[in-house]
Amino acid sequence: MDEAEIAARIRASFARQGLMATLGAELGAIRPGHVEIILRPHPAISQQHGFVHGGAVSAIADSAAGYAALSLMPPTAGVLTTDFTIHFLAPARGVRLIACGEVIKPGRTLSVVQTDVFAEDEEGGRRRVALLTASMLTVEGRPGVTD
Amino acid sequence: MDEAEIAARIRASFARQGLMATLGAELGAIRPGHVEIILRPHPAISQQHGFVHGGAVSAIADSAAGYAALSLMPPTAGVLTTDFTIHFLAPARGVRLIACGEVIKPGRTLSVVQTDVFAEDEEGGRRRVALLTASMLTVEGRPGVTD
Amino acid sequence: MDEAEIAARIRASFARQGLMATLGAELGAIRPGHVEIILRPHPAISQQHGFVHGGAVSAIADSAAGYAALSLMPPTAGVLTTDFTIHFLAPARGVRLIACGEVIKPGRTLSVVQTDVFAEDEEGGRRRVALLTASMLTVEGRPGVTD
Amino acid sequence: MDEAEIAARIRASFARQGLMATLGAELGAIRPGHVEIILRPHPAISQQHGFVHGGAVSAIADSAAGYAALSLMPPTAGVLTTDFTIHFLAPARGVRLIACGEVIKPGRTLSVVQTDVFAEDEEGGRRRVALLTASMLTVEGRPGVTD
Repeated sequence: MDEAEIAARIRASFARQGLMATLGAELGAIRPGHVEIILRPHPAISQQHGFVHGGAVSAIADSAAGYAALSLMPPTAGVLTTDFTIHFLAPARGVRLIACGEVIKPGRTLSVVQTDVFAEDEEGGRRRVALLTASMLTVEGRPGVTD
Repeated sequence: MDEAEIAARIRASFARQGLMATLGAELGAIRPGHVEIILRPHPAISQQHGFVHGGAVSAIADSAAGYAALSLMPPTAGVLTTDFTIHFLAPARGVRLIACGEVIKPGRTLSVVQTDVFAEDEEGGRRRVALLTASMLTVEGRPGVTD
Repeated sequence: MDEAEIAARIRASFARQGLMATLGAELGAIRPGHVEIILRPHPAISQQHGFVHGGAVSAIADSAAGYAALSLMPPTAGVLTTDFTIHFLAPARGVRLIACGEVIKPGRTLSVVQTDVFAEDEEGGRRRVALLTASMLTVEGRPGVTD
Repeated sequence: MDEAEIAARIRASFARQGLMATLGAELGAIRPGHVEIILRPHPAISQQHGFVHGGAVSAIADSAAGYAALSLMPPTAGVLTTDFTIHFLAPARGVRLIACGEVIKPGRTLSVVQTDVFAEDEEGGRRRVALLTASMLTVEGRPGVTD
């Protein structure tokens, strides 16, 4: 697949992730091995202290990681998250969050992906607020799992 | 605090987590060191294959873990997730998901908590679909972080 | 393979792990899906405060997890650790440490395994000192990786 | 503490880690927030396929992370690993392994540290073989835990 086909595939799959629409998340940059997802903080995705809930941060970080992995997979394959670890480095707040997923070790069966989540303030300053590392499984031949 | 006060504190805090209402999650059983959160699968929380998104599973598992830790903390303290690891064991689908958070090592500064997430089918059968292990920080004296 | 063949296979593989001999670790109970490794604390495996080094605890916990996974794999397959997370719950000291690896989700390609590490004191009391969760990959057809 | 004092403190503590001598590990570069540990592959630290055992890789990666954190702590404090996650990216073999621990988020109570472990071949080529992310606890006022 060329870059345009990869981006089209990821956009179509992302549109089927009901959770992303529910959170208000949007796709950002897409390159082979690198996918970004953007989320604007609002009360509907908060935790009890008013910051963005770690579950919402995890959701965009996991999706960005999964699509970064998918961008390097053959068109017949689907991607499943095996496991991920996330460290929360600072409160998630600001004008917008950007989750940048980057494949650090592509593999035929398993890929390792890291997602940095940055918070941008009104002046455009960026601060890293979370770091996720995930193992992503390439799934072939399972009906319904083709992206 | 007695058990009723602990439960009241957690219910009040949970009600402020905008994300839980957005996902449609509800509190279940609350005991000292153990908190459950229930989520009914629906398209608004899905990933691209139609299962519940790993981010939504993570969100209820993380909240259950945080409140399990909070249930053992003094009334002046707040809880923050430092980091968590989640393994996905089976597709998250069925009639409802139940995240059962249990403190496995309480600590003055740091607590370790595990959350098992089970999927229930229509016959009431239970299958474990995810396992989260989290480090939870006890926060004292930080304005706005008191639950 | 029957239980005796599984145990023989694991004993032969364990004997090739130079690190286990260097640490002074020994195999304990072996059952399908469950393998134990025993380590006696001594200064040659310490960290700077005199407890057993987290790396030595991780080593026996990882090996116990790997062999628990291998015990459920076909004879032609080998096992590789993809990733693991370990939480340290209490100082690792006492008369002996026992790492109990248990497969919680067997899979054709990937298995999830948990290892509890207990410290035993002179009276035979047991305290859990660490908890490891690992993803184990089944490797087929790679020369040199057959256990 | 100035850089020379920090390095002296870490060298003295490292010398008390019996496991490091047992593995044959040595300290490399030390800078505030950054510590390296070097390990030469040999059969006494192997796993069953002849590579360096993941437990030995974890041990040097964990120690490098701990000392990177300690390098930013006050002289009265000690460091304890709370938990770590390690991903294995390629077989650990070659002329030497270098674990490079780097603090990515220093904190008064908790620090998050990443360690990249590289394998060097005979031509000096470097390949990343493992990635560890750890939460490190600053311990004050606990007898025997002052480094």
